Amino acid sequence: MDEFSLIAELFAPLARGAPEALGLTDDAAVVEVPPGRRLVVTTDMVVAGGHFLADDPPAMVARKLLRVNLSDLAAMGAAPRTYLLALAVPRGTKEDWLEDFAAGLAEDQETYGIHLIGGDIVATDGPLVASLTALGEVSDGGEVLRSGARPGDLVFVSGTLGDAALGLRTLRGELAGVDAAGRAALVDRYRLPQPRLALGARLSGIAHAAIDVSDGLVADLGHICECSKVGAEVEAERLPLSPAAQAAVDADRSLSPVVLTGGDDYEIAFTAGPEVAGQVAELAAALALPLTKIGRITAGAEVRVVDDAGADVVLGARGYRHF
Amino acid sequence: MDEFSLIAELFAPLARGAPEALGLTDDAAVVEVPPGRRLVVTTDMVVAGGHFLADDPPAMVARKLLRVNLSDLAAMGAAPRTYLLALAVPRGTKEDWLEDFAAGLAEDQETYGIHLIGGDIVATDGPLVASLTALGEVSDGGEVLRSGARPGDLVFVSGTLGDAALGLRTLRGELAGVDAAGRAALVDRYRLPQPRLALGARLSGIAHAAIDVSDGLVADLGHICECSKVGAEVEAERLPLSPAAQAAVDADRSLSPVVLTGGDDYEIAFTAGPEVAGQVAELAAALALPLTKIGRITAGAEVRVVDDAGADVVLGARGYRHF
Repeated sequence: MDEFSLIAELFAPLARGAPEALGLTDDAAVVEVPPGRRLVVTTDMVVAGGHFLADDPPAMVARKLLRVNLSDLAAMGAAPRTYLLALAVPRGTKEDWLEDFAAGLAEDQETYGIHLIGGDIVATDGPLVASLTALGEVSDGGEVLRSGARPGDLVFVSGTLGDAALGLRTLRGELAGVDAAGRAALVDRYRLPQPRLALGARLSGIAHAAIDVSDGLVADLGHICECSKVGAEVEAERLPLSPAAQAAVDADRSLSPVVLTGGDDYEIAFTAGPEVAGQVAELAAALALPLTKIGRITAGAEVRVVDDAGADVVLGARGYRHF
Repeated sequence: MDEFSLIAELFAPLARGAPEALGLTDDAAVVEVPPGRRLVVTTDMVVAGGHFLADDPPAMVARKLLRVNLSDLAAMGAAPRTYLLALAVPRGTKEDWLEDFAAGLAEDQETYGIHLIGGDIVATDGPLVASLTALGEVSDGGEVLRSGARPGDLVFVSGTLGDAALGLRTLRGELAGVDAAGRAALVDRYRLPQPRLALGARLSGIAHAAIDVSDGLVADLGHICECSKVGAEVEAERLPLSPAAQAAVDADRSLSPVVLTGGDDYEIAFTAGPEVAGQVAELAAALALPLTKIGRITAGAEVRVVDDAGADVVLGARGYRHF
């Protein structure tokens, strides 16, 4: 199939229902932004063999790519609106690989109420490369940045940490002490992030700074500290663990750092003044999503992790580096 | 160098002067769209070995990638505003390759008054893949689509056709009968498209339909016909040729179809009612850019190319297919 047939058969259906996509047959898409709203734009790229395993189901690869971009929108406090997709497809790729990839996008479009509005498909002699650009919307000034943290802020994180990193270890056969259901839960968290869009949409006015945890908690909190010119102190014992992650760590204490530095969590870490702690608790209840206080922002310049006794926890690699 | 150093040293400088980029240190960029304006969004991807030659100067690769995206904006009647870039870089790539690539972007940012506002860098075991998403702006309803052509419209094209395709043949050593200056001019047109932004910005209210000629005139006019449900008749003898292209065709008549079907022209083909022919002539004079009438839109369903005697010109491949 050539580029035009692929677009017409596999991707144009993903644009149905989005007039701004112009049926994917024009030179570009035309997006209207309502008065009082701003557009939030982010792009993420994945490469086969690096960001996903060669035999990962294509639908899951597509959904993860879409979701990691939506997670960036969530961390800015934005509501997802639409996206563009560029694919470099290895020559000889079977059409059903692409069909399954498109089916994954279709499923998540339904989940998140968004559509494809543009893209590109090219052939490559190398591994598959997919680049997705997501567009979201936020009210004027409602965006939550990394740069707003202040000393005295509390640090919160949504959901649980470390599951995805432990899921990857499960897939590699490196994990012991976790039952089948636990292993499945961890792998699912690795394969299919849950962008915290409902939380992101409620952070404006509450959070001073936010980031999605993709490189690992310590590294990502470090990004907030760098942008905000502050430090942070994290209490290791407060980190929220899923039952499966807890079982894994109980079986092998050397896995503890994975919770702090393992990537791919796609939870949101945010800072907020102590005076809104009550509002954060109400928000957690309203969203049925744990929002755990894990530490506080300091006047320092780095992320310290301390144990029960207040002693520094020594970490190895401080986060996943993509390059 | 890791991802963060590369972004800080090579790409963050490209975001200086664009507050919406947030210094490339946040999860996403935040774009304000003025009242009465719409955002125009397009994405194009290139792969080393396919879209450019492995030993092409990196700065030229970068500038071409940016310019082909800007050409899409021009064809919609949009003014360029900003862009995002995602790069899959082969492991072991020398840093000066990336420095030169970034320098090319810096040069063209100056030319077009735009900035980088976001992106991603990943490592790959395959060839370099670069994906660029360009954002432009157009007044509400001012966008020029492919779907507006009507029978009786005249078909115009800007500049000259076939130069880039002949430039590629020059690089491959396949071209005879052209002097050194002519060969350099053709190669330059292949390496560095001139997006017709000044023209695009003036097409609203004049053109019924427009497209940038990237796949070859016949193929791209075919896209207008398909979207507008019309046909087109092109008079082969009217096609505008540069002196170098004319010399090449004079030396080898078998090259004639290249002008009709060779890609990479990045001129704009547009249709307009005969009543605005005077306005088109004035526009050409104002822009110092030839706008040549090359045919007309018919009630048919395909693109016919005819010679002086009105006989059909037989073409081989009807355009460059990317995939």
